[in-house]
Amino acid sequence: MNNGVTRKVEADRLRHFIASAFLVCHMPPDNAAKMAELMAAADVGGQDGHGVFRLPQYIKRIQAGGMSVDPDISVVSERTATALLHGGNGPGHLVMSRAAELAMEKAKTCGVAWVGARHSNHAGPAFLYAQMPLKQDMIGLYVAVGSANHMPPWGGTDLLLSTNPISVAIPSNTQPAVVLDMATTVAAYGKVKTAADRGETMPEGWMIDKLGQPLTDPARAGDGLLLPIGGPKGYGLSLIFGLLAGTLNGAAFGKDVVDFNADPKATTNTGHFVIALDIAAFADPKTFKSQVDGIWGEMKSSDRLPGVAEIRLPGERLAATTAEREANGIPVPEALGNRLDALADDLGIDRF
Amino acid sequence: MNNGVTRKVEADRLRHFIASAFLVCHMPPDNAAKMAELMAAADVGGQDGHGVFRLPQYIKRIQAGGMSVDPDISVVSERTATALLHGGNGPGHLVMSRAAELAMEKAKTCGVAWVGARHSNHAGPAFLYAQMPLKQDMIGLYVAVGSANHMPPWGGTDLLLSTNPISVAIPSNTQPAVVLDMATTVAAYGKVKTAADRGETMPEGWMIDKLGQPLTDPARAGDGLLLPIGGPKGYGLSLIFGLLAGTLNGAAFGKDVVDFNADPKATTNTGHFVIALDIAAFADPKTFKSQVDGIWGEMKSSDRLPGVAEIRLPGERLAATTAEREANGIPVPEALGNRLDALADDLGIDRF
Repeated sequence: MNNGVTRKVEADRLRHFIASAFLVCHMPPDNAAKMAELMAAADVGGQDGHGVFRLPQYIKRIQAGGMSVDPDISVVSERTATALLHGGNGPGHLVMSRAAELAMEKAKTCGVAWVGARHSNHAGPAFLYAQMPLKQDMIGLYVAVGSANHMPPWGGTDLLLSTNPISVAIPSNTQPAVVLDMATTVAAYGKVKTAADRGETMPEGWMIDKLGQPLTDPARAGDGLLLPIGGPKGYGLSLIFGLLAGTLNGAAFGKDVVDFNADPKATTNTGHFVIALDIAAFADPKTFKSQVDGIWGEMKSSDRLPGVAEIRLPGERLAATTAEREANGIPVPEALGNRLDALADDLGIDRF
Repeated sequence: MNNGVTRKVEADRLRHFIASAFLVCHMPPDNAAKMAELMAAADVGGQDGHGVFRLPQYIKRIQAGGMSVDPDISVVSERTATALLHGGNGPGHLVMSRAAELAMEKAKTCGVAWVGARHSNHAGPAFLYAQMPLKQDMIGLYVAVGSANHMPPWGGTDLLLSTNPISVAIPSNTQPAVVLDMATTVAAYGKVKTAADRGETMPEGWMIDKLGQPLTDPARAGDGLLLPIGGPKGYGLSLIFGLLAGTLNGAAFGKDVVDFNADPKATTNTGHFVIALDIAAFADPKTFKSQVDGIWGEMKSSDRLPGVAEIRLPGERLAATTAEREANGIPVPEALGNRLDALADDLGIDRF
């Protein structure tokens, strides 16, 4: 993305555009509406690299036969508080929203539920699925195997691991929900791509080369290794999340992970899981949510380091950006806007 | 700990010593045996700051009336896959081993279970509880609110957060289990204390002072702030873990956390939770464990950065240290040995 002319698009207009693109690719209307809702929610929430930015690539995969528009999402195995879904090679958004619904249904009686999925695809930003249980006064957790390996094991140089993100969402009463959404690497690969598009150098600490030297030129990122947070700790988190979201579900992890940008025809067998935890199984939800407000206030009112204007909580910027963009529209950088115009022309749908 | 004369003690001898100390403090024999087993497992596993090192402090709390030797551990609320325990102000070891057993029992039918606890105490190293489900071919997760606040929110200076550790244990077939056990801070506070005992300076990146400057003199740690891994990410993890292990369970979090070293009489209301996940609900356990072996092999055989002799997996050193120390005994540094001798004399039990 460059910083050239940026247009703004209303959220509803964006949803309509996304749905239209999928509809002409023969996606059933319900699925297209769900995709539009979730992809636009990524953009509205400020996760610009995970929303409509991905549309051309999804369409390319669908047209190449690499992703199903009408997946048969089925239950492979089930217990009262668990399920494993086969995603039917559908978009991760459809698979994981189904998984979150099933987890909520089970947690309503069991108190907690863990639903994994195999044969899914990229699902956009992690927070979308962690947030789903909030509306039922539940806590949500979501973990995914990232869609391409850019990290080696700690001390190594083979790209065997991904940014394997985690998101956890906890409801509050008067404050925004606490929503953590983080990669296990210092920088997500999308930030590297953005730096490359902008012609900027990267700070030291994002990547090293295969000799262990800092790599700050994003044009050389193909030779680089993303660094985990906390060194061996972030490596450990990525490994554990990969085993839980990938291997346990019979999904790809390690050298089996397919870079979904590299080959639009290849099945990725992406794995994820979502946990719903019913607050009422532990505490009165209203009381708990007020206590979360209290913790929120404690953090916000902490004394600050010199030069720090404000203390933020995870989820605070997400809430503010969502409110602002739902009201005023979503900025679309020129390069992305041009790619989407070209896509619209290819598909024979209206530009947004 | 200094690096002076180090004695070695056999694991069985250490267990006997720990149990004897609790017995003379009127702890019921079953409880004393369980404490000895778990505390020695910390030492045997190489977590020297979380085993017998803590015994004098636990005894002090018991003698001051700050911790119960015969806690009434009761179920506050329960669903088929969840429970909340009241720990009766007993040692965390007793409370969380009960929690892990209950979680395994529930997961056997439900597939997964999440058991939290309030009114507990320090429980030693996190891996002890994450590992418990392994013997039933289950995956274990454990999270605790740390026992003293040494970290501010990101950008702040008020000590509102702890190292809030997470441990996850995943069984394998022929390799050691994958066991992650990590704090959300770059360095655990115990490492700061060890540096102080040794008169060493700390590396930059462990702590800063309240002006945001690197703090490398461990004697000044009382004025220092531990840094989270990955900056705001580690802060976010600590916050989320505190809400889940503390607030949700009705246990202390934030400013309510009592430094359990500061006042032996004060009730800490420590919170933790443990999750047991039954592998058989998702996959054939034997196949899964072989796949974990496969991932283990992939990581180990990665090409390495210059100067790196070996790639390690989380849990590898734990397994090696456990085997070595069970066979050859546990090294006890002179200063700790002297403290334990003094404790033995005070209690009228045999020195080890």
